[in-house]
Amino acid sequence: MKTTGDQQLVKRINRSVLLRLLRAHPGLSRARLAGESGLTKSTVSLLVRELIDEGWLTETGLTAASGLGRPSTPLQIDARTRGLIGVEIAVEALRVVTVSLLGQVLWTVEEPLDSTQPPAVCRQSAALVARAYAEMAAQGRQLSGVGIGLPGAFDDATGVVRFAPNLGWRNVDFLPQITQALTLAGLPDVPVHVQNEADTAALSEYEFSEDEAQNSLIFVTCGTGVGAGIVLNDRLFTGMQGMAGEIGHSILQVDGPLCSCGRRGCAETFIGARALARMVDTRRGGYYLGVLLQNLWTTFNPGSLVVGGSSCERYPGIVTIAQDTLQAYAASAGMEAPTVRAARHGLLASAVGAAALVLHQYLRPMHPRAHPLAT
Amino acid sequence: MKTTGDQQLVKRINRSVLLRLLRAHPGLSRARLAGESGLTKSTVSLLVRELIDEGWLTETGLTAASGLGRPSTPLQIDARTRGLIGVEIAVEALRVVTVSLLGQVLWTVEEPLDSTQPPAVCRQSAALVARAYAEMAAQGRQLSGVGIGLPGAFDDATGVVRFAPNLGWRNVDFLPQITQALTLAGLPDVPVHVQNEADTAALSEYEFSEDEAQNSLIFVTCGTGVGAGIVLNDRLFTGMQGMAGEIGHSILQVDGPLCSCGRRGCAETFIGARALARMVDTRRGGYYLGVLLQNLWTTFNPGSLVVGGSSCERYPGIVTIAQDTLQAYAASAGMEAPTVRAARHGLLASAVGAAALVLHQYLRPMHPRAHPLAT
Repeated sequence: MKTTGDQQLVKRINRSVLLRLLRAHPGLSRARLAGESGLTKSTVSLLVRELIDEGWLTETGLTAASGLGRPSTPLQIDARTRGLIGVEIAVEALRVVTVSLLGQVLWTVEEPLDSTQPPAVCRQSAALVARAYAEMAAQGRQLSGVGIGLPGAFDDATGVVRFAPNLGWRNVDFLPQITQALTLAGLPDVPVHVQNEADTAALSEYEFSEDEAQNSLIFVTCGTGVGAGIVLNDRLFTGMQGMAGEIGHSILQVDGPLCSCGRRGCAETFIGARALARMVDTRRGGYYLGVLLQNLWTTFNPGSLVVGGSSCERYPGIVTIAQDTLQAYAASAGMEAPTVRAARHGLLASAVGAAALVLHQYLRPMHPRAHPLAT
Repeated sequence: MKTTGDQQLVKRINRSVLLRLLRAHPGLSRARLAGESGLTKSTVSLLVRELIDEGWLTETGLTAASGLGRPSTPLQIDARTRGLIGVEIAVEALRVVTVSLLGQVLWTVEEPLDSTQPPAVCRQSAALVARAYAEMAAQGRQLSGVGIGLPGAFDDATGVVRFAPNLGWRNVDFLPQITQALTLAGLPDVPVHVQNEADTAALSEYEFSEDEAQNSLIFVTCGTGVGAGIVLNDRLFTGMQGMAGEIGHSILQVDGPLCSCGRRGCAETFIGARALARMVDTRRGGYYLGVLLQNLWTTFNPGSLVVGGSSCERYPGIVTIAQDTLQAYAASAGMEAPTVRAARHGLLASAVGAAALVLHQYLRPMHPRAHPLAT
């Protein structure tokens, strides 16, 4: 009645269910895992054994006596055996981080980007990733995958960067190029995932969170451009051409200032780095960021709203003003405003999130793109 | 290694894969289904037999000779054996429709809403659904489920309507009440699903579509209020409190006209039915609808943009102006504008979509809410 593919899929689903349960509730025993997951105790035992052997899980060593019956051993995600590598290809810099399965940042490096030519970018990225891998290997850590965030629209289905204006890229066959460069640099054969930098930034906040009730998050990134990474229904959402989240070009004022994109009144003309640099008082920028957040709130009703990007580092005041503005809008409508958080990883958000992307994909074996219908 | 739950889940997933393949490609044979789905021929044969017996699939009767080997029988979704019932509880009316598995509208009825009190609404709805069911039963059709769309925020996890201002409802325990009313009215024990009317309207366009490449759609509904139903990553997205899509209260003009919600400059103050009724020339409303569409486009980059609701029936010109406005924005940015469609079911969109909601849930057995983690 079943194919081998079926069995593998069921196994991957069951493994991800156990890993996600333990991420949300560290310390569960095998018996509790069986109860929470609906799997039989023998299935849980087999899968836990496998996950421990592969370095995904670990026994805490503490043995909890549970009144009657055998004492049970608390389990948790293994933060010491495996590692994830995240890369951010920014216009001005290359950032590479090593991250544990629990999101602890273990090692970071940053270099100016030597050239924006795709082959050169791939070579330079691969060289830094190889250094990160050497660091990991020296500590006996096993690499689970490499994630890459870049300032452009990436097409998952084809592996092509459709458009990255600040790098001057259009229809660059990026995934095969970077994969080859990584192999040449001596990396082992691990999954490689690519996404837009705002999307990966969103995962830096979402994927390592323990709050499983929140299955949506919007990460607003304020730099030269203004964009959003969007997680909805527990999955990254990137849109039809990988261009979802271009909120910097949503209109905040009809017939407003001319934007670099050619439209008038875009959010970027009020909140973009160039606009902020020209302002005598950036409070106005913070106010418009608040209007943008209010619009994202009413549109998405997200579980979390996070704000990050270089402008938030340079002008931290704008986040406070934006929060106040959002609160004033909510109060006018007699509603409670959602909380807005500042990005916890600062300028490393996209790189850490690129590492999180590896885990995001691994823990979602039923991703629609992997679905037979997508072929 | 597997639980009974596992086997049932795998079966449900495999059934939905076959149904969705045949919806997108009517006429596939068992052999082609096996090739496209990755399932073995014997699994496909068994599942197809079951799906035919249960009235989900039918053989077309035409037998295609395929050169060598046995001739193969084309299969398709059975549009004649099963039926779905959709209900729209609007402020001014109750609408009930019967729909085939392929989305053909078979029967409709509309009545003024007698009372907005929850028990009365449930009784009146159940009585109309019972009439629809009697019609279906008289033709020998089997009921697969009942879907309900209403003008409020519905919380899937608890079955509660959190807030429906135009009905005067707050925290109404709706799902148990309507289920009980349906049982009392003689309905068989079938799945009952509830969602916001804009969300169901989105499904009226999404769920019966044959274009499987498009896994996102935004349905903008223009009536007294302005809202959006949102399908992303192939699933309805309703937000943290079921309040996603409140785009009528996104700000289109800072310090603009006072909105009924208490904020200033909301989209509804330009596009809401009351605003349109006051306008000498509704072109201005159409223009602002275009700004709203441009913002939805840049934010979501959706596969489809659809516009419906009573204002589009009353002032069809606004949709054309909105399209032109969106096109002008796209042209300014040197981009191709997405096409905007008018709702194909007109004022029945929410009711037809409520019927589609039954299918939407049935065909997505891995919906996160059904996931062990959600408990």
